[in-house]
Amino acid sequence: MVLTQVKKTAADIKHMRIRGAGRIARAVARALKTVAVKSKAKRTSDFVKEIKQAADLLYRTRPTAVSLPNAIRYVLRDLRADRDVKELREQIVTRANEFIQNSLLAVKRIGEIGARRISDGDVVLTHCNSECAISVLTAAYKQGKDIRVIVTESRPRLQGHLTARALLKEKIPTTMIVDSAVRFIMKEVDKVIVGADSIAANGAVVNKIGTSQIALAAHEARVLFYVAAETYKFHPGTLVGQLVEIEERDPQEVVDLRKFPGLKVRNPSFDVTPPEYVDLIITEQGVIPPSAAFTIIRELFGWGPQERSKFLSLSGGSALE
Amino acid sequence: MVLTQVKKTAADIKHMRIRGAGRIARAVARALKTVAVKSKAKRTSDFVKEIKQAADLLYRTRPTAVSLPNAIRYVLRDLRADRDVKELREQIVTRANEFIQNSLLAVKRIGEIGARRISDGDVVLTHCNSECAISVLTAAYKQGKDIRVIVTESRPRLQGHLTARALLKEKIPTTMIVDSAVRFIMKEVDKVIVGADSIAANGAVVNKIGTSQIALAAHEARVLFYVAAETYKFHPGTLVGQLVEIEERDPQEVVDLRKFPGLKVRNPSFDVTPPEYVDLIITEQGVIPPSAAFTIIRELFGWGPQERSKFLSLSGGSALE
Amino acid sequence: MVLTQVKKTAADIKHMRIRGAGRIARAVARALKTVAVKSKAKRTSDFVKEIKQAADLLYRTRPTAVSLPNAIRYVLRDLRADRDVKELREQIVTRANEFIQNSLLAVKRIGEIGARRISDGDVVLTHCNSECAISVLTAAYKQGKDIRVIVTESRPRLQGHLTARALLKEKIPTTMIVDSAVRFIMKEVDKVIVGADSIAANGAVVNKIGTSQIALAAHEARVLFYVAAETYKFHPGTLVGQLVEIEERDPQEVVDLRKFPGLKVRNPSFDVTPPEYVDLIITEQGVIPPSAAFTIIRELFGWGPQERSKFLSLSGGSALE
Amino acid sequence: MVLTQVKKTAADIKHMRIRGAGRIARAVARALKTVAVKSKAKRTSDFVKEIKQAADLLYRTRPTAVSLPNAIRYVLRDLRADRDVKELREQIVTRANEFIQNSLLAVKRIGEIGARRISDGDVVLTHCNSECAISVLTAAYKQGKDIRVIVTESRPRLQGHLTARALLKEKIPTTMIVDSAVRFIMKEVDKVIVGADSIAANGAVVNKIGTSQIALAAHEARVLFYVAAETYKFHPGTLVGQLVEIEERDPQEVVDLRKFPGLKVRNPSFDVTPPEYVDLIITEQGVIPPSAAFTIIRELFGWGPQERSKFLSLSGGSALE
Amino acid sequence: MVLTQVKKTAADIKHMRIRGAGRIARAVARALKTVAVKSKAKRTSDFVKEIKQAADLLYRTRPTAVSLPNAIRYVLRDLRADRDVKELREQIVTRANEFIQNSLLAVKRIGEIGARRISDGDVVLTHCNSECAISVLTAAYKQGKDIRVIVTESRPRLQGHLTARALLKEKIPTTMIVDSAVRFIMKEVDKVIVGADSIAANGAVVNKIGTSQIALAAHEARVLFYVAAETYKFHPGTLVGQLVEIEERDPQEVVDLRKFPGLKVRNPSFDVTPPEYVDLIITEQGVIPPSAAFTIIRELFGWGPQERSKFLSLSGGSALE
Amino acid sequence: MVLTQVKKTAADIKHMRIRGAGRIARAVARALKTVAVKSKAKRTSDFVKEIKQAADLLYRTRPTAVSLPNAIRYVLRDLRADRDVKELREQIVTRANEFIQNSLLAVKRIGEIGARRISDGDVVLTHCNSECAISVLTAAYKQGKDIRVIVTESRPRLQGHLTARALLKEKIPTTMIVDSAVRFIMKEVDKVIVGADSIAANGAVVNKIGTSQIALAAHEARVLFYVAAETYKFHPGTLVGQLVEIEERDPQEVVDLRKFPGLKVRNPSFDVTPPEYVDLIITEQGVIPPSAAFTIIRELFGWGPQERSKFLSLSGGSALE
Repeated sequence: MVLTQVKKTAADIKHMRIRGAGRIARAVARALKTVAVKSKAKRTSDFVKEIKQAADLLYRTRPTAVSLPNAIRYVLRDLRADRDVKELREQIVTRANEFIQNSLLAVKRIGEIGARRISDGDVVLTHCNSECAISVLTAAYKQGKDIRVIVTESRPRLQGHLTARALLKEKIPTTMIVDSAVRFIMKEVDKVIVGADSIAANGAVVNKIGTSQIALAAHEARVLFYVAAETYKFHPGTLVGQLVEIEERDPQEVVDLRKFPGLKVRNPSFDVTPPEYVDLIITEQGVIPPSAAFTIIRELFGWGPQERSKFLSLSGGSALE
Repeated sequence: MVLTQVKKTAADIKHMRIRGAGRIARAVARALKTVAVKSKAKRTSDFVKEIKQAADLLYRTRPTAVSLPNAIRYVLRDLRADRDVKELREQIVTRANEFIQNSLLAVKRIGEIGARRISDGDVVLTHCNSECAISVLTAAYKQGKDIRVIVTESRPRLQGHLTARALLKEKIPTTMIVDSAVRFIMKEVDKVIVGADSIAANGAVVNKIGTSQIALAAHEARVLFYVAAETYKFHPGTLVGQLVEIEERDPQEVVDLRKFPGLKVRNPSFDVTPPEYVDLIITEQGVIPPSAAFTIIRELFGWGPQERSKFLSLSGGSALE
Repeated sequence: MVLTQVKKTAADIKHMRIRGAGRIARAVARALKTVAVKSKAKRTSDFVKEIKQAADLLYRTRPTAVSLPNAIRYVLRDLRADRDVKELREQIVTRANEFIQNSLLAVKRIGEIGARRISDGDVVLTHCNSECAISVLTAAYKQGKDIRVIVTESRPRLQGHLTARALLKEKIPTTMIVDSAVRFIMKEVDKVIVGADSIAANGAVVNKIGTSQIALAAHEARVLFYVAAETYKFHPGTLVGQLVEIEERDPQEVVDLRKFPGLKVRNPSFDVTPPEYVDLIITEQGVIPPSAAFTIIRELFGWGPQERSKFLSLSGGSALE
Repeated sequence: MVLTQVKKTAADIKHMRIRGAGRIARAVARALKTVAVKSKAKRTSDFVKEIKQAADLLYRTRPTAVSLPNAIRYVLRDLRADRDVKELREQIVTRANEFIQNSLLAVKRIGEIGARRISDGDVVLTHCNSECAISVLTAAYKQGKDIRVIVTESRPRLQGHLTARALLKEKIPTTMIVDSAVRFIMKEVDKVIVGADSIAANGAVVNKIGTSQIALAAHEARVLFYVAAETYKFHPGTLVGQLVEIEERDPQEVVDLRKFPGLKVRNPSFDVTPPEYVDLIITEQGVIPPSAAFTIIRELFGWGPQERSKFLSLSGGSALE
Repeated sequence: MVLTQVKKTAADIKHMRIRGAGRIARAVARALKTVAVKSKAKRTSDFVKEIKQAADLLYRTRPTAVSLPNAIRYVLRDLRADRDVKELREQIVTRANEFIQNSLLAVKRIGEIGARRISDGDVVLTHCNSECAISVLTAAYKQGKDIRVIVTESRPRLQGHLTARALLKEKIPTTMIVDSAVRFIMKEVDKVIVGADSIAANGAVVNKIGTSQIALAAHEARVLFYVAAETYKFHPGTLVGQLVEIEERDPQEVVDLRKFPGLKVRNPSFDVTPPEYVDLIITEQGVIPPSAAFTIIRELFGWGPQERSKFLSLSGGSALE
Repeated sequence: MVLTQVKKTAADIKHMRIRGAGRIARAVARALKTVAVKSKAKRTSDFVKEIKQAADLLYRTRPTAVSLPNAIRYVLRDLRADRDVKELREQIVTRANEFIQNSLLAVKRIGEIGARRISDGDVVLTHCNSECAISVLTAAYKQGKDIRVIVTESRPRLQGHLTARALLKEKIPTTMIVDSAVRFIMKEVDKVIVGADSIAANGAVVNKIGTSQIALAAHEARVLFYVAAETYKFHPGTLVGQLVEIEERDPQEVVDLRKFPGLKVRNPSFDVTPPEYVDLIITEQGVIPPSAAFTIIRELFGWGPQERSKFLSLSGGSALE
């Protein structure tokens, strides 16, 4: 019954009614909070079991954005078996609220820091629909900088339409192109800014399909390529060799297969941009080069065997073992 | 009245009901032949005037593919004022037929030559909808080579759908991806093959928007990048400094602007692939490196001042001055 | 009155009678010490106001070399309002002396460490007039290594003449070239060594105009490119997105404009060398790769919000808020 | 007498009867333990003198692999003059055992972590004969991944034969090539994995001659290049500017000079792979990018002047000053 | 006596009172004409001897610009021993006049062709003082294109001052920079255009010192790099392996050596830009890629052994053997 | 009986008793001459049949070096059915002698031309055992240039030993390295010079295994990479898309498989160096850039359909259809 609501959130994430790595993370925190609040469990063990079920459900929705397990990890950290249900509930509520608030603050702070790297007169290209990238662009524009933004349409789900709407609402001059026109337009672009779903220990950036070829074209033209991402998008498992799984979604997003008998479709939702194509990562804690991802992850997630094994169990599918 | 039919052909080209650089060239030859056949002119000067009007109309439809002026040039070459209408009509009919036949033979010959560069087991990526590229793929497949083709959807006009259909009809295993997934998929690709709308004196290839970023990604991954093109796609004007004009088409092809007040759209139909990203150009006369484009153009179009001035007048908009 | 002397120092820095990032930093420390010693203020608040005025004056002289604000920051760190003037004076004198001494020791230590990276028989190219680079070259030569140095003349101020004199004084074989001859001579060069005015969090090096094209030519030829710099040349503001301002100086340094009516001149004094062209940064604390700049800055200047806001106020123009 | 045995170990290392950076390190630990156990010294000063002699002998055998001085450093750390012989002996025995055990565990742990980066179906190329690389390959194969390994013969000492035998023993499909065929075969390779003799502060990897051109060919083809190495292969001296000495061995290993009067031979045993060609370093503490080598070394070996001077004295030839 | 005037021309070339590859070539043609006209020789053998002496004198003035021997070659081609003095004189006068006229026409024609490659709004950087480059810039500006030109000062002889004057005279907006600021300013530049002193068979361009590092910086930034040069600047000797000699001029041009005892100076006047950094060569015969240099040279200078041996004897120092 | 001798030559080529692309070509010419001389055929048709059999036998010995079919093609060109045996015999003898003589002259001429590109003091690296490369080195040395040559051992057949002997015989200072040491030694190398087995229409060079990674290392270090090859090593079939087949030889050349049960071996004898890594090709007709290979092949082998079909039939296995 409590799980019904969690299942709804899980389904919303899976079918991209809730989308974007930050929004997903906050939805997950909110869902765990709801379970904690609404649980009718009397005994700690029952309560923990329910929470665990919920976490597992949410964890399994989408594999690529690490913000999801990181949110679970944050909210459920240090739950102790010797506490009673009331104490655990309060702990979860508090941490969920903290996560949500920090997540929103981070977007704002990234906007402030990132806006310092946008100059008056810049033409900035963005891809897909990133809260953090929009925050930077909006902050720069509000500072009175005369910027122009180019948005890709971002097939197959056309998230570029959302970004265009968000920018136009702020009166920022916005131009749309098809994804194929990126290299053509690059000679007019001063900077590229995108978000991230996961950042690996070596600074590689996992983001919406198409990002890595934009980064390649920017690199070729020596256009600066910025990634704007909260620190909870750094992926701890990559420190011990884990690969980030790339989700492949339904072919129907690309083409109506009924009209093309025999056709195959590949529909990867994300790709990996190598660190040598990334100039800066803008986080709420400051601007870092991609080579610093390793340091950031160790600071945030620790390095010792205990910490690691805890994380590993999480990445194995369950948050509470 | 005669011009009515030419106008229809011109409109079909402009609105892409006739599309593809080779098909356009043959349609233009056919249209000139029709004008020659149906003209009621008695005097050479009237006849030439009509032909000239027709050529001008056709010339103005689309600016990028050089196959169009090259077809006009071929059909109308060496028309002499001291011949009567009958002689000129025969000359035009003969040359138009020659052009059409040679054009079709060239596609076939390119298939034979290009197929030698496709190996058993190859995964080949193609973009947009190129007669010559499909000819190579089909010839290789018919030789019994076990190939697999990846086609991009080729936004905004989705010509990839046409290519997929053509390949599936031949039973060639075909996979479709969005244009953004090119770099992601490149690690599985052995070769890329595309067509061309114009090839410049330095070997740069003008082709469907998106081609140059595919070439860049292929170059990065050291995947071979082939261009399949008839020699009438080489652009003589580039020898004397002319730039190939890149057509920008209607924004509505990209997005319904009525739903996005204030949004701008850039919709270039072509881009330019620099020669350093092209491994080979497969023509009906053999396989050439892009650096040989200069030699090919000089052989086909001459270099001396007379030849050149003739050409220049053509590129100025008229075939018969 | 006390400020008179500070004004003189400020003017000397502005007009490059005092120049070089290290010498400027020491001059600033010395000036602050003088103010502290000579101040007639009785009350802490008056004393602090005077110090603050002096710091502001010095801060505004030249915008690019971060050694200047870092020296102010070092000398004025932790001034507390509950101390009396005598205590504050002593504190400032002590810290200024410390700074000056450490600065000189750092140059020496850099010489020792850097000399290990110079091999017998090396031809080393240097640009402009860097204390640290000269320290490395001199140390290597005094160890008996048979080196030869190539100095650029370093237009427009010809600081290469100063470097040539310093090296010739030590009997080091020295060859001068014009700045345009760098790529020509690079095939004879084993290593390049230059100083720095500021080093950003991503390892980018701000140094005398021309440095970045030397680095580019070295990179092309795979010649090692070393930067020799004290750790107080790392720029803390870059951690939070600040851009290093590039000073543009008087056109008359380049050409007599009265003889060229209508001519414009651009005279940037510095440029930015991207980290991928820097092999090593030699500091007094050891040899680091440019990717470690981020770590160094965080260790030296901290990361937490308090620390950062303190720094930020400094970079806003005032050292004592 | 005790030294006789040490001399034998030293000779075995020198003449490559004991070879491989890890095996050498453990042999050195074992030799020091033996000296400690068998020493007949009564007085601490005599005991220390003997240990010191042994350490010096071992230290001088081969110059490139830093595992050797790091093993000495580990075993002899913190010997204090105010302890008696029994206490020192116990300390050395304990630390030598620890080193040996940790070294073996590290190889196993590297196997586990590294195996996560090997995918089912991978073709992996390896060079020379690295315990850690073989550990990764074996672990991946035992997980049921269908891998194929290509080994170079690794002239002049043909260590590839040893690697082939080790892999064939585990039934791993193995193909041998000559060292010259690396670039030819690279198009079939998914990943390269090699060991290391020393890793510098900037992430440069010193390993068996030929490694750097394999890395170059992998980089050209964008094939992933992994280094598997225990953390005691990081070289602390490089932090303060020391260069890793490259051993040149006997010409007779290459060609029988008696048959080629007048011929010279260069026989370097190692080369240096620059960090930009290294994708990941797999250590027993996790996977790190080469840019993190600086951080790792500082954590393991410290940075302060005391620590450094201690290390420096070691690198000067003696472990106990 | 006749030689006196030739000697004066030779001295003017040597001391750069006559400078620029085109102006030198025309001066040489003029000088040979003068000798032919003023010679008092009665017998063919005496006449030829005088001409030969003059040619040798002129040939030896400056080694790098091939326009000089090519001018001699053009003027003295096909002198036959069975002709009398009058006939030979007429032949020389005719050919000298032809050469001069064609040379001037070529500059104009290059302006017309090159101007097609300059777009409205372009910022164009040029180096040194090239007639052909200025011709292109002036032609583009006269077509109403709104261009802005950046000129380097071009140390040590400051030919950039001449270029600035020439452009300002035409009212073209002109900005001067020091040679070191090229990479800094490159981000604002759309195209680079320079002249040439010699172009080798592989398309390498020999031009004023500094050109190759400008080309490198343009290549890095993907800014188009154009060379404007008459076809008589292609170097036939490079076809058979000859290297173009790079002139090194007087150290005093760089620095007053009397003030720097012990200082050495290297003062190369030219450098070599590799063909991969050259996008186009604009000649009076059209626009060619650098890879076509080989074809151009063979067409202009022939390939057969006779032709070649004639040329070779010329390049050996004498035009008339 | 006549074929017995041909079979012996064929076997000698197959088993590398005769090796080197030039020596093979001359042996083939000699063998055809022998057949022509010794044939007892009375009728043209019988004679032609014998010649054809011989050509087929020789053609099939080794697939990669195009000098072999080119030699056959040269000797047997234009044999006409209306001539009698005596005439045909004379024609074959004449052409075989011509081929052999020209082949030897070409090696000499390449030495002369190539020596111009070797400078006094150069260190030159060569690979395998190329007549043409040795000719260049010997010519340069005989001109008094103080050169030093580095030879790779060239596993698996150790042809470097032959080269070392040839150079030492001429007293040229020679150093041998293992193939793996190429990148290590490259920093001391000024130029690389190798031979070729086939050169493709795009300038790609097929040569001894290992060549392409030497070219890659030279390219990385910006060391000049020269190929010395007679024009009969250009491959006409590549013009029409043919791929050059890479011979894979007996595994036993690499390792004794009986000692490694289960081991596989790959033993390719050649690899392909892409044209972008080749600076110059030195032919007996002059120095050409790799991009001119296309032009050379068309000049030598024609382009028209007749020519081509003749060639194609040859490449199909038979010289006389």
